[in-house]
Amino acid sequence: MSPRTKGSVRIVGAGLLGTSIGLALSKLGIYVTMADLSPAVQSLAIDYGAGNAPSTEDQPSLIVVCVPPDVTAQLVARELEEFPEAIVTDVASVKFEILSELEDLGADISRYVGSHPMAGRERGGAASGRADLFVGRVWVVSPSAQTSQSAVQAVENLALDLGSASIQVAAAEHDRAVAFVSHVPQIVSSLTAATLLEAPEQDVALAGQGIRDTTRIAASDPKLWLQILSANAGEVSNVLKGFQENLVGLIHALDHISEAGSLSKISDLLAMGNRGVAKLPGKHGKKATEYEVVTVMIDDKPGELARLLTEIGEIGVNLEEIQLEHSPSSAVGLVEVSVLPNVAAKLIDSLVERNWKLVS
Amino acid sequence: MSPRTKGSVRIVGAGLLGTSIGLALSKLGIYVTMADLSPAVQSLAIDYGAGNAPSTEDQPSLIVVCVPPDVTAQLVARELEEFPEAIVTDVASVKFEILSELEDLGADISRYVGSHPMAGRERGGAASGRADLFVGRVWVVSPSAQTSQSAVQAVENLALDLGSASIQVAAAEHDRAVAFVSHVPQIVSSLTAATLLEAPEQDVALAGQGIRDTTRIAASDPKLWLQILSANAGEVSNVLKGFQENLVGLIHALDHISEAGSLSKISDLLAMGNRGVAKLPGKHGKKATEYEVVTVMIDDKPGELARLLTEIGEIGVNLEEIQLEHSPSSAVGLVEVSVLPNVAAKLIDSLVERNWKLVS
Repeated sequence: MSPRTKGSVRIVGAGLLGTSIGLALSKLGIYVTMADLSPAVQSLAIDYGAGNAPSTEDQPSLIVVCVPPDVTAQLVARELEEFPEAIVTDVASVKFEILSELEDLGADISRYVGSHPMAGRERGGAASGRADLFVGRVWVVSPSAQTSQSAVQAVENLALDLGSASIQVAAAEHDRAVAFVSHVPQIVSSLTAATLLEAPEQDVALAGQGIRDTTRIAASDPKLWLQILSANAGEVSNVLKGFQENLVGLIHALDHISEAGSLSKISDLLAMGNRGVAKLPGKHGKKATEYEVVTVMIDDKPGELARLLTEIGEIGVNLEEIQLEHSPSSAVGLVEVSVLPNVAAKLIDSLVERNWKLVS
Repeated sequence: MSPRTKGSVRIVGAGLLGTSIGLALSKLGIYVTMADLSPAVQSLAIDYGAGNAPSTEDQPSLIVVCVPPDVTAQLVARELEEFPEAIVTDVASVKFEILSELEDLGADISRYVGSHPMAGRERGGAASGRADLFVGRVWVVSPSAQTSQSAVQAVENLALDLGSASIQVAAAEHDRAVAFVSHVPQIVSSLTAATLLEAPEQDVALAGQGIRDTTRIAASDPKLWLQILSANAGEVSNVLKGFQENLVGLIHALDHISEAGSLSKISDLLAMGNRGVAKLPGKHGKKATEYEVVTVMIDDKPGELARLLTEIGEIGVNLEEIQLEHSPSSAVGLVEVSVLPNVAAKLIDSLVERNWKLVS
């Protein structure tokens, strides 16, 4: 299948995203040039096969600016000016501030459309680049009233060529959405993890899966997140203020636990949490499904999980989720297998028949 | 191997924990009686094989009170009085308030020692009871200055008989620890999920793994958590106030993002999150290990994951963690396999050789 992207593509910024886009497009036979402020980084990405060195002859049809959020608008404006025939996009995690800055700079924004591939890794840099990074991801395309149809089409083609599903979300709506589903969860996770700094070492030893799940993303890169949060400060602050109001109410209720209304306040907030989490869509963009969880106890040694999953494969049941739980003080592991409710009984019966030790 | 628990055991409360303890002890050949306020629930647990109906002849050596936190002290006191030779323990998620209440009630607390098995399920009730529920879990035993050595020994024996590792943590320290690692994460998760109630439906469609992980436990039962939180209100409030102080600082910094000190404030809090999450112990009670993550792309159909893990088993590499990531809009799944760094290269080479599609 020939790629939808026509002409050559210029990538500015050879970090994780730029390099990954270059690798994927090059694989499709598209002529890519990679430009980076740092000659060493640029050479590294080119060595990896992400593209070719830029030359004064380049006439890219599409330019993808893949630099940190705080310098994105400036570089997009420069590219728009330098290549007056090209469509320009960027891949920053915030969209509204960049668009406003471009308007202030008087850039020709008919040829610009911001975008945001919902893909990434904890590790950054060209060396982490992968051609498959965008496969199966959502790629947000954020046209403004000034964006030409051809610009939107070019970036949607790019997303499709890279294996993503593109959806159009205007810049302001994008930033509000990621405040809810990405930026506020990041902050809350960081602040939760930060409370552990006050905890004695022996208290932390009682940690279970709950604290692990809620603080996993607290390990993310502060430098990148500082830029993202400052570029979306207004939206993030809005959502945090709602959180904060509920938190104040909850602390007050805890501090006056015997007063009338305290228990119902706490109960209401917990129930709101139930309803909020139920709003999250399930896998494949479907509404969350209630899975049945079957827990199997296995020896924590090589091959055991493989053997279990081979047999589940033989039984012919599709796994929706799988979670390994290691106990802190034994060599036994629990495998939580989530399946659709209509196949759970079959799975349980078949596993018992095959002598697996079920915990649930 | 004969059980460490000697004599017969009386269980009060035939919910998830009581039934599970009864099932496990009965399997070991120990004579168990199950008592529940509700005759129907009591019969159900007995039908399941969790024990026998109580009689006036019972002379239990150990009594395990497995009722909701708010009625635990009262029932422990009653049992201590009714069975003046027996050791009594409970399994509630909070320990200090129960101990104080028992002191206030003038109970003979030399024969009482509180405990808390770090095990549970989202589902409650006798029907969810499992003999294996405690295998490989930590079981906290909380002696007071008045607790006799024989009482501690009896509950440690119980924990060992049920497959748990027992550790001694005094009641106040236990409650402080669970405020940090369990109760505050629960509240924060609920409040984070609650923010989604304000989010338009289309915003929530952009949800990725981060919000899912941070809000998983927000689906927990509000009734149970209301009791837990109210019984540990002081400790939970203490930790939340630290969280709150940081949150206020962060919101202020976001609202005054161009002011001096705002960026460094945000950056500091994110870095504190990094340090906090690094404090969590890894599996098997060891300090967290840096795993190497190998991501494999598979078709999202039955048998594929099994085939992958079979081959990983053949390669002879032990999985430390496994995470399935489904893209919202494609039939491709990503499997993130975490392994020890010293075997990562071998795994990658072998998987590539076997034609698996690696994303990282």
